[in-house]
Amino acid sequence: MSVSTATAATAATTAATAPSVRAPLPVLGLDVTVPLASGGEVTYAALDYAASAPALQRVWDDVAAYAPYYGSVHRGAGYLSQLSTDLFESARRTVAEFLDCRTGDQVLFTRSTTDSLNLLATALPDGCEVFVFETEHHASLLPWGSPHAAGRRGRNARVTFLDAPRSHRAAVDTLERALAGRDPHGPALVCVTGASNVTGELWPVRELAAVAHAHGARIVLDAAQLAPHHPVSLRELDVDWVAFSGHKLYAPFGSGVLAGRTDWLDEAEPYLAGGGASRRVARREDGGVDVEWHEGVARHEAGSPNVIGAHAIASACKALGSAGFDALRAREERLIRVVREGLADVPEVRFLSLFGDDAARVGVLSFVVEGWESSSFAAALSGSYGIGVRDGLFCAHPLVRALTGAEGECGSADSLGAIRVSFGAGTPDEHVERFVRAVRELVRGVRAEG
Amino acid sequence: MSVSTATAATAATTAATAPSVRAPLPVLGLDVTVPLASGGEVTYAALDYAASAPALQRVWDDVAAYAPYYGSVHRGAGYLSQLSTDLFESARRTVAEFLDCRTGDQVLFTRSTTDSLNLLATALPDGCEVFVFETEHHASLLPWGSPHAAGRRGRNARVTFLDAPRSHRAAVDTLERALAGRDPHGPALVCVTGASNVTGELWPVRELAAVAHAHGARIVLDAAQLAPHHPVSLRELDVDWVAFSGHKLYAPFGSGVLAGRTDWLDEAEPYLAGGGASRRVARREDGGVDVEWHEGVARHEAGSPNVIGAHAIASACKALGSAGFDALRAREERLIRVVREGLADVPEVRFLSLFGDDAARVGVLSFVVEGWESSSFAAALSGSYGIGVRDGLFCAHPLVRALTGAEGECGSADSLGAIRVSFGAGTPDEHVERFVRAVRELVRGVRAEG
Repeated sequence: MSVSTATAATAATTAATAPSVRAPLPVLGLDVTVPLASGGEVTYAALDYAASAPALQRVWDDVAAYAPYYGSVHRGAGYLSQLSTDLFESARRTVAEFLDCRTGDQVLFTRSTTDSLNLLATALPDGCEVFVFETEHHASLLPWGSPHAAGRRGRNARVTFLDAPRSHRAAVDTLERALAGRDPHGPALVCVTGASNVTGELWPVRELAAVAHAHGARIVLDAAQLAPHHPVSLRELDVDWVAFSGHKLYAPFGSGVLAGRTDWLDEAEPYLAGGGASRRVARREDGGVDVEWHEGVARHEAGSPNVIGAHAIASACKALGSAGFDALRAREERLIRVVREGLADVPEVRFLSLFGDDAARVGVLSFVVEGWESSSFAAALSGSYGIGVRDGLFCAHPLVRALTGAEGECGSADSLGAIRVSFGAGTPDEHVERFVRAVRELVRGVRAEG
Repeated sequence: MSVSTATAATAATTAATAPSVRAPLPVLGLDVTVPLASGGEVTYAALDYAASAPALQRVWDDVAAYAPYYGSVHRGAGYLSQLSTDLFESARRTVAEFLDCRTGDQVLFTRSTTDSLNLLATALPDGCEVFVFETEHHASLLPWGSPHAAGRRGRNARVTFLDAPRSHRAAVDTLERALAGRDPHGPALVCVTGASNVTGELWPVRELAAVAHAHGARIVLDAAQLAPHHPVSLRELDVDWVAFSGHKLYAPFGSGVLAGRTDWLDEAEPYLAGGGASRRVARREDGGVDVEWHEGVARHEAGSPNVIGAHAIASACKALGSAGFDALRAREERLIRVVREGLADVPEVRFLSLFGDDAARVGVLSFVVEGWESSSFAAALSGSYGIGVRDGLFCAHPLVRALTGAEGECGSADSLGAIRVSFGAGTPDEHVERFVRAVRELVRGVRAEG
């Protein structure tokens, strides 16, 4: 494996017949070559964006430009500490603008969507009812006071799991029915994904938010898969909170975001106990310790902030904003058609879908291949074509089982499940074209398994 | 502010009379210039290592070399996913070696020391007694089941705060007395710092560990300030866990470490609920969800790992190991003498100490200046000399109050408290020499406040 500087020449040996179209937003790693099982090397086709996307070149450049100026955030009197603090707080404002936040919303930096939703779970009011579809990623499915988490997360929360709907209408109706019987004066939270991490399908977030609010419930949007591909407006969607991850938004530097309303969070215990969250700490006469905690963002960001991670996310938000989601979405929809149409006459390939083949989606598609275990197929894509996808149950076991009937463990090498291909603003056409050709060849046995 | 390439020329205008001695380990930012209140610019002297240290050049180079190969860790079938997974697990082994872990110890990647200790706090057995000196940083002082955290952290933990000792002997005796009365069969944890974030003084960790174990208690070492300056051997110190932060160890990419025994952690609920931590998730017939969680490191690392952060920490561990702590400590002790001896004849400057002027310490010194508010003095060091220090209560309120009598809030601009200067393997001699000269000039009114 080596970084080839002769990108064009290398790519030419592997590209489809048409000249490759460059991606709208350059990313790192496009000239990385990887070995093939048959010998030789090929440029790597990163088609696992739904797990982790490569860093945008612009994100990397911004991080590199800042790195020499790194200093202690919120904690120092020196010039670079002030500069770093300004940069960190500026990142917050950039994310707020990216998410079209309302007045009074706050942006918290966390480590990931998983972390963001776990944070919110610790801030549920006592007795909160939580409603979540079984189709969610485990990060959205599990934080809300499951039996295993009783006493730690979601104090006394009661979780209702909703069956997988097979249309937008059914999703809205299911939620409507679930909320209809509840006391509208008690606290409740609905958690819903913006785009499925398995099927890529968009969910009717605005409609679900309207139902939630009509019944006195709040709603949090898991935008891990949506935000990299699609505009997210808290104002327009009218969701109370949104969570997303830097590493899926081309900014893989250990940060994520939870943005939205402040009240539940200000009333909750600090997510982490420590410096930054504590305004004043003093021994009591009885030997104990009194703590006065901050409110606002400081309350839940104890410890030194990951300013590089926050800066990277802000940089990605700016880059996506500059490119424009209209253009990005139009191109991504074309790539989705390349996949769907390119494999339409391969009956062994069955795409997974909740809402039907014509459902709107982001660049995330999962499928099963008749006669293949998903792990073997993914290994062949890697070994014979230098293509990186993911196989298994995608940390969404109930959904994948419902769609495939498969069993297995998350991340297990011998799992069944499905194969997922995912791409975005950094994906050259050639990667998707190579993927289509590879699937066709593997299914037809034209090329040996790697 | 600009990055000057003419480092030598710029530094020459600000250096002490002797030629500056280069730091043992090059860091980013040495040629960054910052504006002075009087006009002109000067190279920035980062003397707030105890909050956040600049990245080692080697850490940056390693991160930059890896960045194009970034892929989804534990989650993908592609070549770069495998490579990234190998890199992440290799980072774990490097850290284990750095900490001289015992067979069976595990290395968890967290976001910071604060996060590591909060994680451990959620893993306390029911009814655990916790013993912690009031002299700890808030990250070590507050996670253990404080009244504010009841029900979430440290289930039913009972915390005993121990008075500040004024010698190593007193520390050991205080702990001995506190543990003497307890039931040695019930679970107990002692939390102690390796080096104070206020005074830099080393604590008698091995002796405290022996006392803890003699009474059936366990011990966790907060090595946030120790690990960057001093070897940490779990084997030799005989501590059960150790926590440290990447951003103080020249690897500011959002990661930290909790290393040590597995049993309490395997028996605890997962720190975060989500993908990666969940082995198997299934709907039950009654509509609920059953979760089978992983054991080992996966149990507490839900969500996509911060592989760049972990890689950065491993790189720093290797760099420190290559440089050798014997050499690093000898040089740092020389710099400490430069500060102490350079200010010995300035009676207005009073250094803070628990254990006396001759106590062994790392390159962290706090002091008060008669006639100055600490924030004004720190601002003058920045504005007139381009020196970045920290002022205030350093997220260790009870300790700083005990040593200074000051009141104030953590991070508040108008706080009283003290001034802290801190340095390490990346600090050129000139920065420390400039600091000594600046303090002398400011105290004597030779140079106007910035």
